[in-house]
Amino acid sequence: MRTTMGWQADGAGDALRRAPLERRELRADDLAVRVDYCGVCHTDLHSLHAQPEAGAAPVVPGHEFTGTVTDVGREVTELAPGDPVAVGNIVDSCGVCAMCRQGQENFCYEFPTLTYGGTDRYDGSTTLGAYSREYVVRERFAYPLPRDLDPAAAAPLLCAGITVWEPLQALGVGPGTRVAVAGLGGLGHLAVKLAVALGAETTVVSRSAEKADDARRLGAHELLVSTCEEQMAAARDRFDVVIDTIAAPHDLSPYLRLVALDGTLSHLGYLGEVDVATMDLLQGRKKLSSAGSGGRPATASMLDFCAEHGVTADIELVPSARVNEVLERLGRNDVRYRFVLDMSDLA
Amino acid sequence: MRTTMGWQADGAGDALRRAPLERRELRADDLAVRVDYCGVCHTDLHSLHAQPEAGAAPVVPGHEFTGTVTDVGREVTELAPGDPVAVGNIVDSCGVCAMCRQGQENFCYEFPTLTYGGTDRYDGSTTLGAYSREYVVRERFAYPLPRDLDPAAAAPLLCAGITVWEPLQALGVGPGTRVAVAGLGGLGHLAVKLAVALGAETTVVSRSAEKADDARRLGAHELLVSTCEEQMAAARDRFDVVIDTIAAPHDLSPYLRLVALDGTLSHLGYLGEVDVATMDLLQGRKKLSSAGSGGRPATASMLDFCAEHGVTADIELVPSARVNEVLERLGRNDVRYRFVLDMSDLA
Repeated sequence: MRTTMGWQADGAGDALRRAPLERRELRADDLAVRVDYCGVCHTDLHSLHAQPEAGAAPVVPGHEFTGTVTDVGREVTELAPGDPVAVGNIVDSCGVCAMCRQGQENFCYEFPTLTYGGTDRYDGSTTLGAYSREYVVRERFAYPLPRDLDPAAAAPLLCAGITVWEPLQALGVGPGTRVAVAGLGGLGHLAVKLAVALGAETTVVSRSAEKADDARRLGAHELLVSTCEEQMAAARDRFDVVIDTIAAPHDLSPYLRLVALDGTLSHLGYLGEVDVATMDLLQGRKKLSSAGSGGRPATASMLDFCAEHGVTADIELVPSARVNEVLERLGRNDVRYRFVLDMSDLA
Repeated sequence: MRTTMGWQADGAGDALRRAPLERRELRADDLAVRVDYCGVCHTDLHSLHAQPEAGAAPVVPGHEFTGTVTDVGREVTELAPGDPVAVGNIVDSCGVCAMCRQGQENFCYEFPTLTYGGTDRYDGSTTLGAYSREYVVRERFAYPLPRDLDPAAAAPLLCAGITVWEPLQALGVGPGTRVAVAGLGGLGHLAVKLAVALGAETTVVSRSAEKADDARRLGAHELLVSTCEEQMAAARDRFDVVIDTIAAPHDLSPYLRLVALDGTLSHLGYLGEVDVATMDLLQGRKKLSSAGSGGRPATASMLDFCAEHGVTADIELVPSARVNEVLERLGRNDVRYRFVLDMSDLA
């Protein structure tokens, strides 16, 4: 085994502590990656607060990172030591099911192997995430990082970015599309930047007008205050696509009412069971969809698009030693718009 | 006022009785139509069993009919006495809201005036339906009936037909689209015929294999038995469009699982609040939609399409005097696939 340093939690709600971690020796199609920057996702918080099963491995979060290849297995052909790479929240999948064959490894029938808290398909071990200095990953799931992108600000593209990119692409967002983005956080701010870069007329929907300057700075054409009945009524049936990035359970009706005839409300991430008033769908033949994460082809094309259009996340870059403070602030939504940990202090 | 004969119910659950009805004198843009054939819709049953408000007008059902123009108001330009026409479940709308301007009078912001049980926009009277010998209707909401269509078998196109036509059109169903139709009743059998005529690979999903011969006769390529777990599992993620015509409340999950990547489940009619497991949408970026009724442009183009492709409903034609027996049989789903009342016995 290889050893590296990382940040691990031993039980639910425990602070992360610096600890040595083991990584597997490289398989034929593996890369070793020196992790330079790792984004901090809401999922990391959830994982750290979930009650682990008895005997479960410690949790090492981190599933959106950039770094540098340091070593390669003997069958690796596309990447070499020194190459900058990016890795997201999926590190393996069956490769043969209907979804994998369509390049949607995120919907793999055997469930994709998650970057942390997943189960390795070969040795059955629990995956440990990228809040660490080294990660060993199958080549297929590491993406060349375009050199035009700042590697720290690009890290969040690998989870937040691809999660908003897939529905924007699937729903055909482009010049002239009227897009509303509900919630201006880690996902929302990237949805705005990407929609704007795709040429869409982009509106932010937020609980207060306080983020109006930020919305404009991100390229949005307008901010709609969701608590203002008058504004929401005036925007009825106005948007071809509404991207709902609000993570907490909430009533979908006000957002469905913003959707235009034959348009779609796409909710990102896992909401569990939701109540839908079918009249909200019926009145305008509207569609409700849900999306999360992304497949390999879309991830690669998103990175190319971001390099071409200069899109990265707005980040607060913090030494990894401050990870516990960062998680506490994220719990209060005190971040504009994504924390990224600088892993060089683990060297 | 004009008088005609019709079938009316005086209270909830009462049998319909033959009675004289009043119709308004023609306004400038009105037509008088001799009702020849009127389809019997599930909505008629619901309306007859709903508890009326105190002082409410009697119920005269009937909102999918064909007939012949007998008289016209002074501003009527497109139709003349003797012309065959068809009328559906909407007889007026505001004409100026965003939905009306898009030709979706069925989603009119002021709510469209229903053919029966609606409120006339000018005199405030309650509309009485087409289980009667004459109907007076605004010219805009009467459609020329193509002479190639059998007027009795065409009557159900005006409600059941347009209800399935709109989602098929909105979802781009055409050659090569993989369509599944869940439920083979009044709506379902027309969804199959129209999807087949549009060139789609069409599958019927039914509770038992008993309707396999019918499905084939209607043009479907296959029948999938919804109670057979094996067949349903094998059809996972297979259909671009699933048209769900099942009227009773039911779990949408088994039908969502049939939808392909980026495909849509369109439920027809009003289901009220439904629970949706967002994981069923997330796993394949699927869409849930709802549709019902249709606007003027789509109704007219559907009638042209049906004339060109020889599509009408499979009907059981019955003298209107047998309406109570017909309603009782419809309550038991004892019909393949639509009852149509012959109104000539009211002459």
